[in-house]
Amino acid sequence: MIRRNKISVIGSGFTGATTALYLAQRELGDVVLLDMEEKVGPTKGKALDMQETAPIQGFDSWVTGTSDYADTADSDVVVITAGIARKPGMSRDDLVATNANVMRSVVKEIARYSPDAILIVLTNPVDAMTYAAFKESGFPKERVIGQSGVLDTARFRTFVAQELNVSVKDVSGFVLGGHGDDMVPLVRYSYAGGIPLEKLIPHERIEQIVERTRKGGGEIVQLLGDGSAYYAPAAAIVEMVEAIVKDQRRILPAIAYLEGEYGFQDLYLGVPTILGKHGIEQVLELDLTDEEKAALSKSADSVRSVLSVL
Amino acid sequence: MIRRNKISVIGSGFTGATTALYLAQRELGDVVLLDMEEKVGPTKGKALDMQETAPIQGFDSWVTGTSDYADTADSDVVVITAGIARKPGMSRDDLVATNANVMRSVVKEIARYSPDAILIVLTNPVDAMTYAAFKESGFPKERVIGQSGVLDTARFRTFVAQELNVSVKDVSGFVLGGHGDDMVPLVRYSYAGGIPLEKLIPHERIEQIVERTRKGGGEIVQLLGDGSAYYAPAAAIVEMVEAIVKDQRRILPAIAYLEGEYGFQDLYLGVPTILGKHGIEQVLELDLTDEEKAALSKSADSVRSVLSVL
Amino acid sequence: MIRRNKISVIGSGFTGATTALYLAQRELGDVVLLDMEEKVGPTKGKALDMQETAPIQGFDSWVTGTSDYADTADSDVVVITAGIARKPGMSRDDLVATNANVMRSVVKEIARYSPDAILIVLTNPVDAMTYAAFKESGFPKERVIGQSGVLDTARFRTFVAQELNVSVKDVSGFVLGGHGDDMVPLVRYSYAGGIPLEKLIPHERIEQIVERTRKGGGEIVQLLGDGSAYYAPAAAIVEMVEAIVKDQRRILPAIAYLEGEYGFQDLYLGVPTILGKHGIEQVLELDLTDEEKAALSKSADSVRSVLSVL
Amino acid sequence: MIRRNKISVIGSGFTGATTALYLAQRELGDVVLLDMEEKVGPTKGKALDMQETAPIQGFDSWVTGTSDYADTADSDVVVITAGIARKPGMSRDDLVATNANVMRSVVKEIARYSPDAILIVLTNPVDAMTYAAFKESGFPKERVIGQSGVLDTARFRTFVAQELNVSVKDVSGFVLGGHGDDMVPLVRYSYAGGIPLEKLIPHERIEQIVERTRKGGGEIVQLLGDGSAYYAPAAAIVEMVEAIVKDQRRILPAIAYLEGEYGFQDLYLGVPTILGKHGIEQVLELDLTDEEKAALSKSADSVRSVLSVL
Repeated sequence: MIRRNKISVIGSGFTGATTALYLAQRELGDVVLLDMEEKVGPTKGKALDMQETAPIQGFDSWVTGTSDYADTADSDVVVITAGIARKPGMSRDDLVATNANVMRSVVKEIARYSPDAILIVLTNPVDAMTYAAFKESGFPKERVIGQSGVLDTARFRTFVAQELNVSVKDVSGFVLGGHGDDMVPLVRYSYAGGIPLEKLIPHERIEQIVERTRKGGGEIVQLLGDGSAYYAPAAAIVEMVEAIVKDQRRILPAIAYLEGEYGFQDLYLGVPTILGKHGIEQVLELDLTDEEKAALSKSADSVRSVLSVL
Repeated sequence: MIRRNKISVIGSGFTGATTALYLAQRELGDVVLLDMEEKVGPTKGKALDMQETAPIQGFDSWVTGTSDYADTADSDVVVITAGIARKPGMSRDDLVATNANVMRSVVKEIARYSPDAILIVLTNPVDAMTYAAFKESGFPKERVIGQSGVLDTARFRTFVAQELNVSVKDVSGFVLGGHGDDMVPLVRYSYAGGIPLEKLIPHERIEQIVERTRKGGGEIVQLLGDGSAYYAPAAAIVEMVEAIVKDQRRILPAIAYLEGEYGFQDLYLGVPTILGKHGIEQVLELDLTDEEKAALSKSADSVRSVLSVL
Repeated sequence: MIRRNKISVIGSGFTGATTALYLAQRELGDVVLLDMEEKVGPTKGKALDMQETAPIQGFDSWVTGTSDYADTADSDVVVITAGIARKPGMSRDDLVATNANVMRSVVKEIARYSPDAILIVLTNPVDAMTYAAFKESGFPKERVIGQSGVLDTARFRTFVAQELNVSVKDVSGFVLGGHGDDMVPLVRYSYAGGIPLEKLIPHERIEQIVERTRKGGGEIVQLLGDGSAYYAPAAAIVEMVEAIVKDQRRILPAIAYLEGEYGFQDLYLGVPTILGKHGIEQVLELDLTDEEKAALSKSADSVRSVLSVL
Repeated sequence: MIRRNKISVIGSGFTGATTALYLAQRELGDVVLLDMEEKVGPTKGKALDMQETAPIQGFDSWVTGTSDYADTADSDVVVITAGIARKPGMSRDDLVATNANVMRSVVKEIARYSPDAILIVLTNPVDAMTYAAFKESGFPKERVIGQSGVLDTARFRTFVAQELNVSVKDVSGFVLGGHGDDMVPLVRYSYAGGIPLEKLIPHERIEQIVERTRKGGGEIVQLLGDGSAYYAPAAAIVEMVEAIVKDQRRILPAIAYLEGEYGFQDLYLGVPTILGKHGIEQVLELDLTDEEKAALSKSADSVRSVLSVL
């Protein structure tokens, strides 16, 4: 039978709210935006403001703000953006511990109200937080997914399009491994108009673009002065949600649970995947060069080291 | 010859930034987001974050953040969202005086760098600020426009669609006069599926919806606790910009300069207009009932009283 | 669980094929285009050509051409465009009898393979053919729907927009009764920018536009010389399908089974409806003037007279 | 100043008409559909039918049917689809001679009424016909362009997406040289999700897909029985028009005039280009393998042999 999809977004900060907006704009389903009790006012305010956008932009999704997990019941997809940002003087381990607690309490409620949902995690450090969500939920691995590669490649594609002065539509990028600093770019699998970038841009300049991509989150943080990026991160999430709710079988990078792929066990790491109605329908394995293997291994170590805090 | 449109947005707060995002998403032109020198970092940060959204959402507009009006040169349309919000303890007259000064300094620069631009004003109190922009710019009246009715009717349409549980696409509303409290709703020109609302919703309930619309901005302010609506206001602006840059000749409510229409002289007031490539291409005049005339007159008095501060 | 919608289109002539194209473009579901055995080649050819459009226009719907009803199994919506056009020398009764036979054989197969589908009928004479489909299918009335009013009002809106030189987005129309000649226009419920047309266009000119709308199908037939309209009819169908598969609860005119509404019994006639995931979720009843009642009665007589052939 | 784009389409057959439809749907400009005097009725009929689609699909482009070149005056882009298809018993040389005459008479009128237009040619044999249009128009080379590669790669991408059961959005292809049989596929520059196809599909299977692509036009002709493909060819044209009128600087394959590139002189041949507001803004040169060079040379010979008829 015909049914409307339902998508919940946990955390009504900038990223969560922008995610809700994009979901509604694209009529991907009805949207529930949830934050904790003390933020329920602003959450409802943002949801109402978005709802009032609908007649102008012509979308028929309902957007609800709430602090009650019962309102998220029977969601098809749940996006988790909740968590705190690292503050001055806070150790990385403190951040991990705090956000892992947030993650566990969120996932517990999600699993209770939406036992069949697909989870997409954005909370940082995202590789570790996706792992925590997987463990807490008890969901099968294909239904617990982290976002990082869509955003990283979007930044890379932007910088390349600017460099070549061509449409962003015709530039592609490819990353493996962790988010940001731990990113393993596969430049040989990155193209403009199908032409390998290495044939279009001098090696040194590519290296600069890769480095800028690696620090892409930090570049925005520094410019904003207070807060971090949300327009592009939310778009990355929504592209993954769209692939799932429309069962598009998109080939997108995602943080997936590995059981032997690329030589890793019991680890969440960024790899190319096929996203469809079941979540991660396949992990695509590639032959890597020794250099790439080493970089991926280093990236995995970095993720494991964060996990050890949990 | 084929050319890309250029649209500048003055003020990089939530409304200005969201306006820039929507403009880019719809590929209505290249976007320059400008704020004053001390906010240039965040402005550039937001612009870059939006730009990095382009590869994912597939749009080919360039988005630039700046504090230098030279970067806005030769804009086709300039949206002005700059200004302060009323703070506790601030008199209305102080607000008017402050924002009028902002408006004058902004418009002076716009007129210098983009003498052929069409201006759309969102800064509050919007009727008076549009008047100030008109006077300062020396532009012909059709190129200086204020926004209020598209937003007011969007809120009204949302509430009616929820009341009837039907698509927002099939509900229309109609307002005259000032923004918010001064709004003059023409319920007899408001419909669901073409059927006058009065035949579908009890009179008393319509009154409640009208009242909620009137206070629609305040409802969001109260929920947010800190700040005011921006998702729907930005969408309202962008619908007007789209009508202009695509020369659609949309019939939309806008704050227009009146020279005799509806019996008013030398006043900016919300009326139905036709928006196309020249800006306001026509003001549509309607026969009003005595009651409506009285309400509009009251609304005009209210605008004039604000203007007297200038 | 997340699932892709499936929509079948019976009849791969111009209207059927264009319907399939629009459905795919909007990613409303996977599309099966079916025609009889002797047309299976062209049907497969059109489907493949559409499928090859997908990478360029960026849609992820599968389009299949077939002559085997088994391929339509478990459709959510089935659109029926099959039937012959009236040929020179053919009596209207012959046309009715022939197409009723087509309708019965098509609906029998649909009911067998997709017992839960919602049917939308476009075959002419559409009021009678929808009735035939209803009887043959044994489906509840809300799941058997005919199209005429969306197309008739689209033509009316086009002519009004041209007359006023304004955006088609801001013009609405309203019709009751049968298709084409039998159409009962409610001009008092037709607007431009919410303003009743009677205030914007002289009465006589409106009459001409109404008359042109009534003959709108014939105007295209005459121009084409060979064949009839399909771009707008297919768009009309697809707007109805979209309302259903997205559960938008659009208020759209549709040919609905009446059981007392507007004073009619056991008759399919064009009325305003709410379309959502259950099909026709509500028939909206309006107070009519005596003149309108008389015209609707005449329209109903005309439909009944066609039905008497069956 | 803000202006609406104007796009003319010469030839109102299936491809021309479908091109006009897509252009209007995307609001890329006002559309003039032109065919010769004896087809002006059907041309006007199709244009009117499309125009009546606008209120439903929500686009504000005007579509006009005509046989008078004066109506195409000052077009920004002109698409030429006019010409006859090869008939049984007709020699290739007869086809070339006939269509070259059509091309010359069309281009003469275009050059007279729209001296600044950018021409896009689809008439077959397209490489030679683009050359004829270039010579007749006297336009600079960047403003006379032929279409073949966008369509060829769209077919290739469709078959690959089906083979891998993934989204068409994530598959890319790359061709050089002439259209259809003369096509030179660069499989090493073709990817799914950025991964070279050679790593995902067995070599032999790729060869079959390449061969099916080469014969892609013929496959549709054979299925249709009467006529040739138009949905995907029109989409290919419109992607090129969009790149130009939105100045997107897309990297797209196009038939471009070569003056030394790839070692050819005074020849129109399919190569990767950058399309923007000036037409072909750049031809991208690639290093080719010896095998690819030989294939491209053969393709060029084939084009030259057709040109020798002119």
